[in-house]
Amino acid sequence: MKKLTEMSREELSQFYTQTESAYTAFKLRGLQLNMARGKPSQEQLDLTRNLHQPITDFLDEDGDDVRNYGKLLGIPEARRLFGEILQVPSSQVIAGGVSSLNLMYDMICRAYIYGVLPQYTPWRLLPQVKFLCPVPGYDRHFAITESLGFTHIPVPMHDDGPDMDMIDRLVAEDDSIKGIWCVPMYSNPDGITYSDAVVRRFAALKPAAADFRIFWDNAYCVHHLYPNQPERQDHLLSIYEACQEQGSEDMVYLFASTSKITMASAGISAMAMSPANFVWTVEKLSLQTIGYNRVNQLMHARYMPDLSSVEQVMSRHADLLRPRFELVLNKLQAEISPLGIAQWRKPRGGYFISFFALPGTARRVVALCKEAGLVLTGAGATYPGGHDPLDSNIRLAPSYPSLQELERAMELFCVCVKLAAAERLLAQ
Amino acid sequence: MKKLTEMSREELSQFYTQTESAYTAFKLRGLQLNMARGKPSQEQLDLTRNLHQPITDFLDEDGDDVRNYGKLLGIPEARRLFGEILQVPSSQVIAGGVSSLNLMYDMICRAYIYGVLPQYTPWRLLPQVKFLCPVPGYDRHFAITESLGFTHIPVPMHDDGPDMDMIDRLVAEDDSIKGIWCVPMYSNPDGITYSDAVVRRFAALKPAAADFRIFWDNAYCVHHLYPNQPERQDHLLSIYEACQEQGSEDMVYLFASTSKITMASAGISAMAMSPANFVWTVEKLSLQTIGYNRVNQLMHARYMPDLSSVEQVMSRHADLLRPRFELVLNKLQAEISPLGIAQWRKPRGGYFISFFALPGTARRVVALCKEAGLVLTGAGATYPGGHDPLDSNIRLAPSYPSLQELERAMELFCVCVKLAAAERLLAQ
Repeated sequence: MKKLTEMSREELSQFYTQTESAYTAFKLRGLQLNMARGKPSQEQLDLTRNLHQPITDFLDEDGDDVRNYGKLLGIPEARRLFGEILQVPSSQVIAGGVSSLNLMYDMICRAYIYGVLPQYTPWRLLPQVKFLCPVPGYDRHFAITESLGFTHIPVPMHDDGPDMDMIDRLVAEDDSIKGIWCVPMYSNPDGITYSDAVVRRFAALKPAAADFRIFWDNAYCVHHLYPNQPERQDHLLSIYEACQEQGSEDMVYLFASTSKITMASAGISAMAMSPANFVWTVEKLSLQTIGYNRVNQLMHARYMPDLSSVEQVMSRHADLLRPRFELVLNKLQAEISPLGIAQWRKPRGGYFISFFALPGTARRVVALCKEAGLVLTGAGATYPGGHDPLDSNIRLAPSYPSLQELERAMELFCVCVKLAAAERLLAQ
Repeated sequence: MKKLTEMSREELSQFYTQTESAYTAFKLRGLQLNMARGKPSQEQLDLTRNLHQPITDFLDEDGDDVRNYGKLLGIPEARRLFGEILQVPSSQVIAGGVSSLNLMYDMICRAYIYGVLPQYTPWRLLPQVKFLCPVPGYDRHFAITESLGFTHIPVPMHDDGPDMDMIDRLVAEDDSIKGIWCVPMYSNPDGITYSDAVVRRFAALKPAAADFRIFWDNAYCVHHLYPNQPERQDHLLSIYEACQEQGSEDMVYLFASTSKITMASAGISAMAMSPANFVWTVEKLSLQTIGYNRVNQLMHARYMPDLSSVEQVMSRHADLLRPRFELVLNKLQAEISPLGIAQWRKPRGGYFISFFALPGTARRVVALCKEAGLVLTGAGATYPGGHDPLDSNIRLAPSYPSLQELERAMELFCVCVKLAAAERLLAQ
């Protein structure tokens, strides 16, 4: 097949007509498919069904009844588990409730209301606060800092992580830059894992703002697609250890959860940080709550006492996710690759495939899909303010649909990508 | 026995010496008792042990799997249950996570950051924000608004609720007064339930600040000590309905939880509010989280599908709490009443007994108790800033200790009350 850009106007016209009739046929099928969010499938939820066993004793390792008030920091076994996952001493881990997004929102609000440490000005009192946003990125991150009126500075993603030269320079010269959103492993949506060099450069940053903070959302830290093939697994350097080497450990907050390990709505989460950040955070957190759900922490810690038991669960998730990712990638390879109109990343973990359509066509592709019954993440959602300057990136979330649904969805998606590209090229 | 104030100096001196030797004897016994917090006892926690049954299906009434992402508002059955408890239509209820304190903190923070409705100035931008605090009251309420730098105005509690003349006047004349903390039923610590007239006066308030909000923390709304004796039960008028009659329903936020119904650390909570407040709250809440723990909501709603099943559980709590309250009250009656040095309330529900020691002795009583091994709520904790102007109020929390421990604790407490009073009177 010829590349679209190499077609004559006549060939392109013919291609358009053929594709349009394929699209019309899809519309007539009245599909109802959804690839918008990184939701686990029904089969994935069933993997950890045994987590809900009748509980015969409610005592944590310390012998405390987890049903009563107390222990704001969480039970020791949950703190240890997340210490292992996040590679931070468990004494610096707070085990939380169901949502690490909630922990991040609350952390930002504390910085905004009270300041990141007692000696710093609360962000609410500053004339301007800027946040760095590697793009494409996670819309819910951007929405938090947008709601506080922060200015977002997009930072391009490369194959090894965000553009560190740009970050280095920006944070050194502008003390109104107070933070950066990072999904360092199998990033949302690119599936990129930050290289060791990038992680070390993060730890070595010399920000003009002493209260600059890295929000290290390690949402996909154990979410490999090929857990049994070490050579097809990404590895993430411990940023906390890298920071310790630099003496910069106050600069990073780490987050993780079991939302995509056990249950999306009913997992447990954690945050980890330096001793100084820890003391201040706990002081303010104690205003907000007496404690998180420690019964749920106990159920989780008994079901998965350590990283190796987490990895066993994740291997079963991978068995369900891998064929979905491979189906999407194979479809794109077969249908779109020869036409030379788009690019995409081949992630080795995480929940998304980041697709770059012919510039200027992403919104059109999403609209065409929607019209024919396939809901995708809104075009632009992966950029702050919903604005993708190239109108190119589309986040594909293959986890939730069945393989059969996914096949149909991808057929439609490919038709829409082609149709939008042909339209665009014909209009030039 | 003679009243202490009627004793001659010599009699008082003798009383002091006797009491002091009783106190010394207590110190030698090396007690370790705690009546500081309103914690359920072990037996209470065991009442709802069957809540943790193996779950065979995870579908809520809508047929949605509660384990997946979604439904920020909570599952319909949990919203309906709290609608019944709070007497607000379930469509205006958000079912939350384990802690209603957390919901209140977050609600205050939203008002502070974003404003209570889009048309109002966020509280953070105002030169001064004042909050009314009925006293004695709940220390964790005061701590939240104190952390934001709000000015607290104490409002005296009467037998039928807070001083409404004072509240009426203050809110009408000062538009920097933005809210009031209320525990309207079996109040913390007094055990007072607001009368119908007081509730109606709340609903009829005409605050100068259009963004004035009543934080109606209905923590003890089903927490009767005498559930089988209607004449010994308090009743609380529905403030939401009273507000609807006045057209003032935007003025109130309602909160409740099952922390003292099922599990203190692992219950479910809810907030309810007017349609206008609801829309704005949900918009901002959606920034903070994708949803609360709906598996826990489902477990709760299946265990207690309606108010009547909640009342059955509460009746068993009452069986455990009632003898503890009666023991405390009987001890006080026998030991302290004849001396005329203190007063206390006889609550018909809730978790506390509010004790008013001889003015100027509360801190001394708490210190004496502590020295002999009994931890009480810090004196002054029931007042904003920890400052009880009369140094008189002590909050007694009888729920956690066993009856045997409680008996010992109360013996010690009475000795300390007497000793501190005698010291004080001798020093005059």
